[in-house]
Amino acid sequence: MKLYKVGVMMISAEIVSTGTELLLGQSLNTNAQYLAEQLAALGIACYYQTTVGDNAERIRSVITHALERADMVITTGGLGPTMDDLTKEVVADLWKLELQMDAEELARIEAFFARRGKKMPENNKKQALLPAGAQKVPNAIGTAPGIIVEKGNKTIILLPGPPFEMQPMVETTVIPYLARKVGTEPTVLFSRVLKVVGPGESVIEDRLRDLLEHQSNPTIALLAKDAEVHVRFTARGHSQEAAKGCIHRLEQEVRQRLHPYVYGADDATLASVVGTLLRQQSKTLAIAESCTGGLIADQMTNIPGSSDYLLLGVTSYANRAKQEVLQVPATTLEQVGAVSAETALAMVRGVQALAGADAAVAVTGIAGPGGGTADKPVGLVYIAVRNGQEEIVKKIQTFGDRRTIKLKTAAAALDLLRGQLMANET
Amino acid sequence: MKLYKVGVMMISAEIVSTGTELLLGQSLNTNAQYLAEQLAALGIACYYQTTVGDNAERIRSVITHALERADMVITTGGLGPTMDDLTKEVVADLWKLELQMDAEELARIEAFFARRGKKMPENNKKQALLPAGAQKVPNAIGTAPGIIVEKGNKTIILLPGPPFEMQPMVETTVIPYLARKVGTEPTVLFSRVLKVVGPGESVIEDRLRDLLEHQSNPTIALLAKDAEVHVRFTARGHSQEAAKGCIHRLEQEVRQRLHPYVYGADDATLASVVGTLLRQQSKTLAIAESCTGGLIADQMTNIPGSSDYLLLGVTSYANRAKQEVLQVPATTLEQVGAVSAETALAMVRGVQALAGADAAVAVTGIAGPGGGTADKPVGLVYIAVRNGQEEIVKKIQTFGDRRTIKLKTAAAALDLLRGQLMANET
Repeated sequence: MKLYKVGVMMISAEIVSTGTELLLGQSLNTNAQYLAEQLAALGIACYYQTTVGDNAERIRSVITHALERADMVITTGGLGPTMDDLTKEVVADLWKLELQMDAEELARIEAFFARRGKKMPENNKKQALLPAGAQKVPNAIGTAPGIIVEKGNKTIILLPGPPFEMQPMVETTVIPYLARKVGTEPTVLFSRVLKVVGPGESVIEDRLRDLLEHQSNPTIALLAKDAEVHVRFTARGHSQEAAKGCIHRLEQEVRQRLHPYVYGADDATLASVVGTLLRQQSKTLAIAESCTGGLIADQMTNIPGSSDYLLLGVTSYANRAKQEVLQVPATTLEQVGAVSAETALAMVRGVQALAGADAAVAVTGIAGPGGGTADKPVGLVYIAVRNGQEEIVKKIQTFGDRRTIKLKTAAAALDLLRGQLMANET
Repeated sequence: MKLYKVGVMMISAEIVSTGTELLLGQSLNTNAQYLAEQLAALGIACYYQTTVGDNAERIRSVITHALERADMVITTGGLGPTMDDLTKEVVADLWKLELQMDAEELARIEAFFARRGKKMPENNKKQALLPAGAQKVPNAIGTAPGIIVEKGNKTIILLPGPPFEMQPMVETTVIPYLARKVGTEPTVLFSRVLKVVGPGESVIEDRLRDLLEHQSNPTIALLAKDAEVHVRFTARGHSQEAAKGCIHRLEQEVRQRLHPYVYGADDATLASVVGTLLRQQSKTLAIAESCTGGLIADQMTNIPGSSDYLLLGVTSYANRAKQEVLQVPATTLEQVGAVSAETALAMVRGVQALAGADAAVAVTGIAGPGGGTADKPVGLVYIAVRNGQEEIVKKIQTFGDRRTIKLKTAAAALDLLRGQLMANET
């Protein structure tokens, strides 16, 4: 991809994730994604990510290989208190740096345990050892400090594995450090993502074919997700503003061609977009879920401040709950069944009234793997939305395993709600 | 780690994930985890995972490097219909294999679109091209077939990126294929994981120190998760049974030392364990959530068949919902506030009565980042459980970002429920 033609002009970094649990598939590597996102935003090229186990010899070979290809290596994991934690020791040995006890860090780690009314276990002591000449990356949440070491034009950044420790460390210390490095580079890479819900990847590619075929700067790429497709623009320029500018023009064109399916950009999620619309219109929301089983409420409540507009979520799995909590008529359940337009409408009316909410969304369907029939197959879902007195119901057929069907249903439901709230604006 | 000493005797495989979206952090690499899990279960050693972008030259260099280190390379991604999809082309070129149109696959792909009432887009045609001599991995869900090619003692397996397409392909075709290969090997690696909720990694290491220090076969490793710690045993033997046997003895010892904090093993989740207990005791469940916002219900409903015992989940974010749906007394909310033991108890009683459920769990707390005070800081949570007429309430202080606090609270709540259901059994 053209994106990479600029490599020679840019700082490059490789992400090395350590942890035998990753090699054995017992843990999902969210750190590589998070760090990759940060590097892309800074315009630092990243061509490879590598995962290696808690094995000194292999960690050493991976870091050595990465340093041959890139200016910088960022590692996560292996800074913990246990005997498996080796990364710092490997790097110190590789660059012949003495490990020295840092009194300040030791005191901080002891205080960490004291705050929790505990004595520091002996094995946490080694977390206060730092390579000579290292720059510290303070850890405000956990015990292991991060470490930045430079040698000639190469840099190694060591970060702990737990995401909720590592991420604040990156935001407060590592990103400013990297920004200073990038600042001296002639070319900046800027990336932006449009998020599309509804049409599939092939349909979108057909609509954008000429743009995709004649792309240069910015480049465009399509990424299929569980329940969405993302359109990524990546531009290169002498400043962020220049890069943003040349994306802006193309973005408008793409938004027009994909209207009304583009729901947001970059960090926006369907839940955050719906939340923003509710806030702008000072409306409250109630949610009734059957097949999604609380997933829609969970997604909405991942947004900080969602308690300002989300009043109530009801997961009415049993028919009794549908009847007694949401006032779905027994006759409706008997005559057309729980998975029907009528039940979805009764659920949305019931939950809106129960919560006294301005808007409401309800879903009922078959998540599978069991429970499907010839006329009501697994993946069949009815979605109902109420915005004030206006109401709409939609039937969709989703495909995939139980979790995928839940995710696709949640996306379709939030998108239908989004459409109703926006219609309301014009 | 000793785990790797057996490498020379075993088949080894490397996982190569392709996709520029992974390098830019716009997509989480769940495929590497899934495949690593399958390889570990088969006793196939995996020492490295690599991620590379949609760039022919770099994909080629990564596959070439991996083939030098391992017997087998398994790739995901790059089999799609778009111009970015290059993996098959790279491998055909690397091993000088001609790409031939497979009439059967072409017909299947056309039928795939026909079933959805669509005509096959031109660009999907290339998905039916297969390297000469390749073994097909049928794709029952999506359009791209998987491919297995062998050359001398090396094997390359190409799989599509979307997890819900790739995983069934692995289960129906790839695992049987790999099992046949492994069957011819003298040593089998077997891995088992005990899942622990409650104590932290350091505390557990202290309790298992002697076992950790004198480990050989099986090996033991500790893995810290968002809300749990996993204890992994990996044993080697001439048969699965032999390996399982030598893990069994050590597992009993560890279970004893960590009692009552081990809630399950391997694929078990807190939700699946609670679900199984409810099923065994033929009990029904109701859930009332404030700070977890539907996450507990979402986790419970990820378990197939959960509709047999889960009656109702209520996300009562607003005080009005707590009062009118769950019958929490206004006076309680005024006098001690929504985040209190009294409110948690009122919620659990309310939701149990509303659903007519045998058991119920309720949580109320402060997920943050806002809303904390000196005496009620972010992360403070009250959990209440009712099992029939018996009730218990617990106060915990969690740490981390909003999502982490939700995850830790959900785990603590399901664990408290688990404890009450088990006490009931003895």
